[in-house]
Amino acid sequence: MKKARIVVTLKTGVLDPQGKAIEAALRSFGIQDVGSVRQGKVFDVELSTEDAAAAESTLKSACEKLLANTVIENYSIEIA
Amino acid sequence: MKKARIVVTLKTGVLDPQGKAIEAALRSFGIQDVGSVRQGKVFDVELSTEDAAAAESTLKSACEKLLANTVIENYSIEIA
Repeated sequence: MKKARIVVTLKTGVLDPQGKAIEAALRSFGIQDVGSVRQGKVFDVELSTEDAAAAESTLKSACEKLLANTVIENYSIEIA
Repeated sequence: MKKARIVVTLKTGVLDPQGKAIEAALRSFGIQDVGSVRQGKVFDVELSTEDAAAAESTLKSACEKLLANTVIENYSIEIA
């Protein structure tokens, strides 16, 4: 069994209203040091394969097909 | 300016219906190797401070106050 973490983030230049709202909320809580916030998603996946190359190709296809919208999002895959 | 990444994940044992739905969707897309999926959130934060210790304490307080529900979620902070 392999474990992997996929992180999906918005591409640079894509507006992130959710991040902006978090920024504003942090300031309203008195946290002033925060410059910008961008929110993304993380997926912790367990795979039944032991083969790192097979795991990587499975996860790539999962990202392309379902987990990330590649028009506006980047994804990164870390296999543990 | 410091950059940091905060990852918020559900604690072990907390049900994750969103993750379960993703698992089922991946299988319906023909991706069979996937065992379990758990979804979390990631926040990419830019801080106006240069001091790593100050940045860490700011982010900790941001997590406790707003970004994570510490009853059911864990958070991890990585400062770049």
